[in-house]
Amino acid sequence: MKRKTVTLAEIFSPRGVAVVGASPLVGGSFATGVTYALKEAGFPAIYPVNPKYTEVLGLPCYPSLQAIPGIVDHVVVSIPAESALALLDDCAAKGVRSVHFFTAGFSESGFTERAALERAMLSKAKTGGFRIIGPNCVGLSVPRVRLVNGIGMPLEPGPVAFISQSGGHAQNMPYFGSARGLRFSKVASYGNALDVDESELLDYFSEDSETKVLAAYIEGVRDGRRFLSALRKAAQRKPVVIYKGGMTDAGRRAAHGHTASLTSSVAVFTTLCRQMKTIQVEDMDELIDVLVALLFVHPLPEGTGVAVLGGGGGPSVLASDEMEKAGLKMPPLSAEVQAELRQFLPLAGSIFGNPIDAASLLSPETILATMRVLGKVPDIHMFLYHLGFHPMSRWGGERRSWSDFLEPATQAFLEAQRTSGKPVLLALCPPPDLAGMKDFLAAQQAFVTAGFPVFHSLRQAGRAIARVLDWKHA
Amino acid sequence: MKRKTVTLAEIFSPRGVAVVGASPLVGGSFATGVTYALKEAGFPAIYPVNPKYTEVLGLPCYPSLQAIPGIVDHVVVSIPAESALALLDDCAAKGVRSVHFFTAGFSESGFTERAALERAMLSKAKTGGFRIIGPNCVGLSVPRVRLVNGIGMPLEPGPVAFISQSGGHAQNMPYFGSARGLRFSKVASYGNALDVDESELLDYFSEDSETKVLAAYIEGVRDGRRFLSALRKAAQRKPVVIYKGGMTDAGRRAAHGHTASLTSSVAVFTTLCRQMKTIQVEDMDELIDVLVALLFVHPLPEGTGVAVLGGGGGPSVLASDEMEKAGLKMPPLSAEVQAELRQFLPLAGSIFGNPIDAASLLSPETILATMRVLGKVPDIHMFLYHLGFHPMSRWGGERRSWSDFLEPATQAFLEAQRTSGKPVLLALCPPPDLAGMKDFLAAQQAFVTAGFPVFHSLRQAGRAIARVLDWKHA
Repeated sequence: MKRKTVTLAEIFSPRGVAVVGASPLVGGSFATGVTYALKEAGFPAIYPVNPKYTEVLGLPCYPSLQAIPGIVDHVVVSIPAESALALLDDCAAKGVRSVHFFTAGFSESGFTERAALERAMLSKAKTGGFRIIGPNCVGLSVPRVRLVNGIGMPLEPGPVAFISQSGGHAQNMPYFGSARGLRFSKVASYGNALDVDESELLDYFSEDSETKVLAAYIEGVRDGRRFLSALRKAAQRKPVVIYKGGMTDAGRRAAHGHTASLTSSVAVFTTLCRQMKTIQVEDMDELIDVLVALLFVHPLPEGTGVAVLGGGGGPSVLASDEMEKAGLKMPPLSAEVQAELRQFLPLAGSIFGNPIDAASLLSPETILATMRVLGKVPDIHMFLYHLGFHPMSRWGGERRSWSDFLEPATQAFLEAQRTSGKPVLLALCPPPDLAGMKDFLAAQQAFVTAGFPVFHSLRQAGRAIARVLDWKHA
Repeated sequence: MKRKTVTLAEIFSPRGVAVVGASPLVGGSFATGVTYALKEAGFPAIYPVNPKYTEVLGLPCYPSLQAIPGIVDHVVVSIPAESALALLDDCAAKGVRSVHFFTAGFSESGFTERAALERAMLSKAKTGGFRIIGPNCVGLSVPRVRLVNGIGMPLEPGPVAFISQSGGHAQNMPYFGSARGLRFSKVASYGNALDVDESELLDYFSEDSETKVLAAYIEGVRDGRRFLSALRKAAQRKPVVIYKGGMTDAGRRAAHGHTASLTSSVAVFTTLCRQMKTIQVEDMDELIDVLVALLFVHPLPEGTGVAVLGGGGGPSVLASDEMEKAGLKMPPLSAEVQAELRQFLPLAGSIFGNPIDAASLLSPETILATMRVLGKVPDIHMFLYHLGFHPMSRWGGERRSWSDFLEPATQAFLEAQRTSGKPVLLALCPPPDLAGMKDFLAAQQAFVTAGFPVFHSLRQAGRAIARVLDWKHA
């Protein structure tokens, strides 16, 4: 008797998870790491499977899937490729919904017998009525149901879905995005895309009510026509941000060796991305930056005019160069506006022209007063405030105590945003040592918690908002 | 009686330093910060000057320069611009060699009377037989004689001289470069360049035996012809790396407001940089990256062929894209070389094509074995090893203990470099949290101490070495 095809909605809500290949060795395999992470996350029904052990990380370990007393919907597999087919027979017998293979060494290896093995696996899945994730990937994370594939993923659910052909990126993006305020509905790494592929995932997420923004790392697509149709549908419903790996000849060779992907030409892909009204980015940092801009710049600016504020002449000159390179405008200020600023900004050591550079921009009152004046300038559509973390700012600056600055500064940004109707973006430059990092992380947390978009350089802030405005006005 | 003109060599070796405007207030002015930093650095003769106080940070504070009993060669000034002329009379009376004005609010303010004040200051300096640094800058650091203008500057002397029209950059570059191994002969911030300017500094550093590499941040030049002649001479003697601020219209406006600089067109400047055989960079990060490449890539590679090694398929695809975008080559490996690698690298989860991606590349033995094989490939001229710091690598990876990895990995890199004659470059990706940063900083310190060039992304590594090879083969 053949079951109805398992849906992604079912796959993303497993009642029990078996981890095949887990072991009690500290610093052990991926499977052990996943077991540890599921336990830490509080997933309710975790079943390590390994005939060699009776216990893994304090959990009972079973010799086989069939020996597990409870329901197993999802199976995480990290055993040699040679044992894959036998395991799939067990999966069918146990009546699972989905099998995620971390195991690699299939079609991506370039050996024909390994590609044939993949096809045999797919055939077993179809007969057995379950689905395969991967092989050669890190699988699934669904924070709402505490399904995780590693530590470093924020457990609080949120609006971002991320599909990633790379397992490394699938783990890095939430880890790096978390401190910037990104939270996830689901993260799905799909590797060789033997069964569940990018198009099916796009289709699912375009309808998923928990997902407001869709991010994708893609090396190659299985079926170009189907992908474009899924992409068009998704992009009509929510913002879609795509990072395409393998944009150069060397990158394409690497992508083929990584996930057996046959990638298309750069020009074609970029043109299609624009036609489908998706946002294309060039690396993981930019993917995170654009998601931060989409989620936390409120409201999206009406135009490309930016007022840059902060201390430091060199950084101010850099800011101007970076904004203009990104395609934004830095409208010069009229004599009247400059005169208004001179009423409370010191003549010495300041730049009034936009950028506004003044040491006293470390005072929340001055920040607010400056933004109040600039907020009335029609061709300024947003504020970008930048802050460095040099040790001298902890000694010689005007700021008496760092923590005393953060709360009133946050209030000043909120008030400026509210009264002007123009968004505030923040560029905090990460310092190179632990002492500086502590200040930096405290500032980032304060501003992110208050809902602000935080970027790690002027360049990244400028590029991200420029990409979003390009997309908005396309 | 007029003295002989004071030389920069004299200015860089002051016997006593007065700090005018220092106060006992914690978190006080720049002058207090400099006093603090000079004391921390162990400079032998520091004289705070302020008629309001008798003690600053435990040092006797003097009401005027004349009241100081010892020799004062250098004066650091942070008092209102209005008091500048009177102070310069005192400087003449005390017979000082050089006066550094942190004080701003001169020609860069755009007011004609402030530009006139500057000219009057210069005239007093010429009559008084001393030199002016600035105004509107953070002045000088000479680690060898413990002259510093802030904390965050490494006190161990080294081969890099940095001249910077921006005070912020003059403080940030040593702070950020320090952990990457950069050490400095002298750092000179010169702001409005009223007296000592970029050309005089270039001339000095091209002959300075303590300086092996020259870095410059320049917004505008005072005398184009003289600057080009100084630049040509310097670049004939040592590598010169230039970051030009104000490359866009907005940047040029900011530079004028910052240091009253009238900047030239981008195209002209870039062409001249190439003709003079200097290395031009686009921001501070790249300035540091290129200095790291110049100082720590040994030997400089014979060509642009790079072999990329590390764990992670996504990062490997990214590496390929970044290397090719930077203008480097990633030579594909022959079937014979791939077969040799398969003798010790696992089939599953690996990429053999260049990049080499294998989880077992976290084993120093495997790193060395892989580099031994690749070192024999003629069109590979350098190795780039990359490493991330995801929390899963601390749990699920093959690496049992982080500190156990660093020492043998360092030895493997040294051995690979020695036997192949090809340099090893490292890309360590800074993680977003304190726990990860501790691992990252330990790794960076281990590799930097062993003399390796460490970059903070694949992109930065590729771009920096490409710039240096461009310059070398120009």
